[in-house]
Amino acid sequence: MTPRVGIIMGSKSDWPVMKEAADFLEAMEIPFEIHIVSAHRTPDRMAEYAKGAHTRGIRVIIAGAGGAAHLPGMTASYTHLPVIGVPVRSSNSIDGWDSILSILQMPNGIPVATVALNAAKNAGILAASIVSASDEKLAEKLIKFKAELAEKVLESATELDNLPYTYRR
Amino acid sequence: MTPRVGIIMGSKSDWPVMKEAADFLEAMEIPFEIHIVSAHRTPDRMAEYAKGAHTRGIRVIIAGAGGAAHLPGMTASYTHLPVIGVPVRSSNSIDGWDSILSILQMPNGIPVATVALNAAKNAGILAASIVSASDEKLAEKLIKFKAELAEKVLESATELDNLPYTYRR
Amino acid sequence: MTPRVGIIMGSKSDWPVMKEAADFLEAMEIPFEIHIVSAHRTPDRMAEYAKGAHTRGIRVIIAGAGGAAHLPGMTASYTHLPVIGVPVRSSNSIDGWDSILSILQMPNGIPVATVALNAAKNAGILAASIVSASDEKLAEKLIKFKAELAEKVLESATELDNLPYTYRR
Amino acid sequence: MTPRVGIIMGSKSDWPVMKEAADFLEAMEIPFEIHIVSAHRTPDRMAEYAKGAHTRGIRVIIAGAGGAAHLPGMTASYTHLPVIGVPVRSSNSIDGWDSILSILQMPNGIPVATVALNAAKNAGILAASIVSASDEKLAEKLIKFKAELAEKVLESATELDNLPYTYRR
Amino acid sequence: MTPRVGIIMGSKSDWPVMKEAADFLEAMEIPFEIHIVSAHRTPDRMAEYAKGAHTRGIRVIIAGAGGAAHLPGMTASYTHLPVIGVPVRSSNSIDGWDSILSILQMPNGIPVATVALNAAKNAGILAASIVSASDEKLAEKLIKFKAELAEKVLESATELDNLPYTYRR
Amino acid sequence: MTPRVGIIMGSKSDWPVMKEAADFLEAMEIPFEIHIVSAHRTPDRMAEYAKGAHTRGIRVIIAGAGGAAHLPGMTASYTHLPVIGVPVRSSNSIDGWDSILSILQMPNGIPVATVALNAAKNAGILAASIVSASDEKLAEKLIKFKAELAEKVLESATELDNLPYTYRR
Amino acid sequence: MTPRVGIIMGSKSDWPVMKEAADFLEAMEIPFEIHIVSAHRTPDRMAEYAKGAHTRGIRVIIAGAGGAAHLPGMTASYTHLPVIGVPVRSSNSIDGWDSILSILQMPNGIPVATVALNAAKNAGILAASIVSASDEKLAEKLIKFKAELAEKVLESATELDNLPYTYRR
Amino acid sequence: MTPRVGIIMGSKSDWPVMKEAADFLEAMEIPFEIHIVSAHRTPDRMAEYAKGAHTRGIRVIIAGAGGAAHLPGMTASYTHLPVIGVPVRSSNSIDGWDSILSILQMPNGIPVATVALNAAKNAGILAASIVSASDEKLAEKLIKFKAELAEKVLESATELDNLPYTYRR
Repeated sequence: MTPRVGIIMGSKSDWPVMKEAADFLEAMEIPFEIHIVSAHRTPDRMAEYAKGAHTRGIRVIIAGAGGAAHLPGMTASYTHLPVIGVPVRSSNSIDGWDSILSILQMPNGIPVATVALNAAKNAGILAASIVSASDEKLAEKLIKFKAELAEKVLESATELDNLPYTYRR
Repeated sequence: MTPRVGIIMGSKSDWPVMKEAADFLEAMEIPFEIHIVSAHRTPDRMAEYAKGAHTRGIRVIIAGAGGAAHLPGMTASYTHLPVIGVPVRSSNSIDGWDSILSILQMPNGIPVATVALNAAKNAGILAASIVSASDEKLAEKLIKFKAELAEKVLESATELDNLPYTYRR
Repeated sequence: MTPRVGIIMGSKSDWPVMKEAADFLEAMEIPFEIHIVSAHRTPDRMAEYAKGAHTRGIRVIIAGAGGAAHLPGMTASYTHLPVIGVPVRSSNSIDGWDSILSILQMPNGIPVATVALNAAKNAGILAASIVSASDEKLAEKLIKFKAELAEKVLESATELDNLPYTYRR
Repeated sequence: MTPRVGIIMGSKSDWPVMKEAADFLEAMEIPFEIHIVSAHRTPDRMAEYAKGAHTRGIRVIIAGAGGAAHLPGMTASYTHLPVIGVPVRSSNSIDGWDSILSILQMPNGIPVATVALNAAKNAGILAASIVSASDEKLAEKLIKFKAELAEKVLESATELDNLPYTYRR
Repeated sequence: MTPRVGIIMGSKSDWPVMKEAADFLEAMEIPFEIHIVSAHRTPDRMAEYAKGAHTRGIRVIIAGAGGAAHLPGMTASYTHLPVIGVPVRSSNSIDGWDSILSILQMPNGIPVATVALNAAKNAGILAASIVSASDEKLAEKLIKFKAELAEKVLESATELDNLPYTYRR
Repeated sequence: MTPRVGIIMGSKSDWPVMKEAADFLEAMEIPFEIHIVSAHRTPDRMAEYAKGAHTRGIRVIIAGAGGAAHLPGMTASYTHLPVIGVPVRSSNSIDGWDSILSILQMPNGIPVATVALNAAKNAGILAASIVSASDEKLAEKLIKFKAELAEKVLESATELDNLPYTYRR
Repeated sequence: MTPRVGIIMGSKSDWPVMKEAADFLEAMEIPFEIHIVSAHRTPDRMAEYAKGAHTRGIRVIIAGAGGAAHLPGMTASYTHLPVIGVPVRSSNSIDGWDSILSILQMPNGIPVATVALNAAKNAGILAASIVSASDEKLAEKLIKFKAELAEKVLESATELDNLPYTYRR
Repeated sequence: MTPRVGIIMGSKSDWPVMKEAADFLEAMEIPFEIHIVSAHRTPDRMAEYAKGAHTRGIRVIIAGAGGAAHLPGMTASYTHLPVIGVPVRSSNSIDGWDSILSILQMPNGIPVATVALNAAKNAGILAASIVSASDEKLAEKLIKFKAELAEKVLESATELDNLPYTYRR
C-alpha cells in the first residue's frame, strides 16, 4: 500500500510533538511515512523529498519545525501538494512566536496550512480530512471521530455533578 | 456541476480581501460558492451551512473573518471537511493579531488550516491543491501555475539589469 | 429557587480556574449552574444552552475558555443576556494572548464582558454586581465585601511593621 | 426619570469613540448621563462621581480611556456597581495594547467588564443587557435588536449575488 | 529625622521585590517609610497618603504594583512630588507587559518615572539620586557606589582567567 | 544663572518630540541646556557631556532617542545624576517597542527614569518636580500647574453639555 | 574585477529598500552583484546561486526578504559564506515581526547576521566591514565614513542653536 | 599568534551562554580573547577595548548582553570592525524581547550583526566565516563542519526507523 501522508520534521527533538500526528493517522488506518529532513542542515535532501513526494503517491505533507521554521514553507515551494505546518515551541524559541510567524506568513503563491502551536494531532486530523475527500470510508471514520469528541465532553461533564455547593441548581 | 469549494465570510466588508480566493478558483475552473455567513450575527445559518456542505458536494470550505474571528473555527466544529481560515485585518483589529490567534490556536480535535493575514489567494491555492488530490488534471494546472510563478520572478529579475552602478558586476 | 448565574466552560480542565467564580457566588448565596459546554466539540449543546438560559431564569452567563476561545463569544451570539468571558491560560496557549484576544475583540453588536486572564473570581463578582441591580440585599453584601477587601489590606499592612531597618521612619 | 447608565471618559478627545455608547442607549430609550472625569487630572471628582453613582440610581457605569487607562479600574474601586471599560486607541498609544492591558488585567476583587478596542457601541449594548435584567420590556427590545443584526447580514448577502464569475454555483 | 522617600506597594506579596529599594536606601542612610496602600482596595487611603506626603517631608515616592498597575499613576495624580513606578511581575500577569504598560504610558501632565520590570533596586538608586540633588554628601556616596559597581565587574572578570582553552590569547 | 536641566537627543529629527520638554521648562522658568549628542555616532562627546554635567550645575538630564535607544542608558552609566529617558517613535521603529525596551530595561545599578512613548512633556514635568525638591517656589508653581490641569478638564466637560439626546439626564 | 558582495532579494518590490545596500557598496567602491532570487518561487535558482557564490569570489551575501522571510536562512544553509539578512516590512507583514523573527531565530549551525528592519544601508556597511578584514585600504575608508557620521551630528547640532528660549543657557 | 576574535560580555552570568562561541572558535583553532566588559558599569573600559581591538589584530567582536543590551551597539560605535551581537535571555528580561530589540534595531551607520536569542554558537560560526574570508584553510574547515551537520541529521533520522506503527510505510 502506498503512503498517503508524509510526516517530516527538522530534528529528532521535534518527535515528541510530531508523534501525535502519526498516532492519529495510525488510528485512522491511513498509510504514512516519517522522515527527519532539515531545511537548514540538509536542504538538498529536503528538495529531493518534496519534489518526489507526489510521484510516490503522497497526497499531503505534514511538516513540523521550531524557531525560524523554514521546513514547511520550503517544502511547499517544491511541491503542489498541500503542506500542513506545525509550529513547534523549541527551547530557544521566543514563546513560539518565531515558529508561528515563519510558518504562517507565507507570500502569495505558496500557502502553508498552519495549525496551532505544537498541534501535531490537529495536523493529523487535517491531513485525514484532506485524504478523505476521495475516500468516503475515511470520511465516515472522521464523522465518527467527531461524534466521539462530543461524547467525551458529555461524559466529563458528569464528573462535575457532585460538587459540594449549597447554591448550585 | 456541483460546487467543490465553499467561500464564506462574516461580513460584506471582507469581500475585497476574500475576492482573491474566488478569482483563483475561477482561473483554475473549480466550481465554487460564495456566501455571507456571520458566526456571531447568524449562528444558526452558519451551523446549517457547515452541516450541509458535505452533502452538497463541497470538499473544502474557505472561511475569512477579522477581530475575534470565530467563523473558521465554528465552521470546522460542524463539519469533518477541511476548513481553511483567512485572518482578515479589519478596522479595529489590533494589527491582525486578534484574527490570527482566534483562527490559528484551535484546540485538539478541531483543526483550522490557517493562512497568512489577508492571504485569501493562498487560501484559494490551498483549496485547489486539496481538490486536486482526486483530480489529476487540476494537479497539472497547479504544477503549471507554480512554474509560471518562477517565470515571473525571472522576468522581473531582468528589470534590475540596467541600474546605473559603476561597481556592479 | 431558580439559578441566576450560569457558569460554563469548554473542558473539565478549566474547572480549577473557573471554580473561583462558583465559590464567590456560593459565598454571596446566589443560585447558579455549572455546565461543561464545548463550543467546538458540542456546538449544538452550546447553542441550545445559550438559547434556553434566559427562559430558565438565568440573568448572566460566565463562560471560560482557553486558546482560540470561542465559547464566550458564541454564547453571546445566541442570547441577549450579558455574557462574562474568562480567558484561561491553557497549556498550549501563547502566554494567554490567544484566549484574551479571541474573547475580547468581539465585533460590534455582540459584546462579551471580558475579565483578566484566569480571573474567574472577578467574573463571579461581576456577575453578582449585575444580579444586584435588582436585588438591594445582594448590593449590600457586595458593599460589605468591598469593605472587607480594604480591611484585609490594612491588616496585611501591619505585617511589615517590624522589619529590621535603621533608617525606616 | 433617573439615569440608569453613566458614561464617563477621561478627555473630550474620547468623545468620538464614546458617542456610540450614548447613541445605542438613546436608541433603546434608556436614560443616561455623560461626564468628563479624568482619573489623573481630576481624581477627587472621579472618586466623588463613582461613590455617588449608585445612590443617584445609576445601575452601570461605562468608562472609556486610552494609554495607561486608569479610569475604569479606579471607578470600579469606588463602587460596587458593574463598570464596563472601553479601551480607546489614543494618539500615542502603542497600538492599543496599553489601554487594553491597563483596563483588562484588574486584580482579584475589583473586576472591570472590558470590551474590544474602541468598542463603545458594544459597551452600550452590554449596559443595556445589564439593565434589562430587571426590565422585561428592554429585554424584548434587545432580542429585536439581535434579530435585526441577523437580517442585515442576510440583506448584505444578496449584494454579492451577481458577481461575474463563470464557475460560481 | 523626617523620612525622605516613601515606599508603597499594592499588596504584601510585592514586598520580596520591593525590599531591594528599602535595602538600598538603608545602605545609603536615607530615611524612608514603607506602607501597603492599594489603589483598588483602599483608594481613599492612597489619596490621603499621596496628598500628605509632601507636607511630611517626603521628596520622592516609590510605588510598586503588578497587573493593571494603577498605584504609581494614581499616586502621581495626587501629588507634585516625583513618583517612581516599579512594574512587578505578578502571578497572573502576562509576562509583565500589563504592569509595564499601565505604569509607563501615563498621559501628558502626570508623569511616572518607570524603571525596569521588578527593578526595585534601581528605583531605590533613582530615589537616592533625586534626593542627592540637594545633599552633596549623598551625591558623593552615589559616586562611590558607581565606582564600586565597576570594581565588581573587574573582579568578576578575573574569574574567567583560567578557562582551559588552547586558542585563548 | 547655571542650567539645571540638560536636554539631549540623538538626532535633530528627535527635536519635534523633545521640544515639549524645553517648552515646559521655559514655562516654569527653569534654566536648561539643549544638545544633540549621539550615543552611536559621537560616543566620546556623549561620555564627556555626561561626565561633566554635574560639575556644571546640571541636576537632571533628559535624554530622548528612538530605535535601539542607547543614549539615556549610556548617559546614566557616566553620571550619578538622575536621567530621564524619552522613547521616541522613529520611522523604522517597530511601533515604539524597541525604544521603550532599550531605555526601560536597564540592569541593576544604572536606572533610567523612563516616561511614555514620545512623552517629552512629561519628561519636562518630571525634571521640574526633581528640581523642585530643593526649590519651594518651583514646587508651588508645579502645584498650580496641576490645579490648572484639573480646571481644563472641568472646562472641556461643559462642551459636551448640549448634545441633542432625548434620554440624557 | 570579481564581485565581492552579492545582494539578493525575493522580489522586485524589495528593491527600494535594498537599494541602500548597493548605494553604500558603490560609494565604498566594492564590486557587487544584484539578483532577484525567490526562496519560495525559485528555490532551485536560490540553491544554485548560494552554492556557487563562493567559487565566483563572493565573500558576503546580503539577502533581503519580507513576511515569512526564508531567503537569508536558506541561502545560509547552502554556503559557508557569511549571510547578512535584511528584514523587509512588506505590505501584509505584521508590523515587521514576521520578517524579523524568520530571519533572526535561526537554529544552531546556520547563523544569519540580522540587521534592523529595512536597514539595508547597515547591511551594506556590515558587508564592507567584513570585506575590509583583508583590505586595509577599505578599512581606512570605513574609519573615515564613521568620522563623517560624527561630523554630521556636530553640524546638525548647530541648527538648534538659535531657538527662541529665554531660559536656555 | 594574535587573537582574531574578541568575545566580550556584560557580566559573568552571561558566560554559560557565551561559552558556546568560545568552544566553537577553539574547535576551529581560531585564536580568540574573552573579556568581561560592561557597557553600563565600565563604560570607559568598553570604549578603550573597542577602540583598541583593531590595532591588536582582532577582526571580529562577539558581544553578548541581556535586558537593555547596549554592549554590542556601543562597541560597534567605537570601531569599524564587524560586531556580532548575542541577545541573552537574562532573569528579568521580558522573554528576551528587550535584548533582541536593543541589539537589533541599531540606527543607520552603526550595524550590529544580530544572531538568535542565546545563540552564541551561531555567533562563533559567523565569526569564523568572517575570518575565513582571508583564510582558505579555515573556509575548508567550515565547509567540513556544515557537511557534518548534515550527516548528524541523517544519523538521527535512523533512530526513528523502528517505531511500532502498523500503517507506517
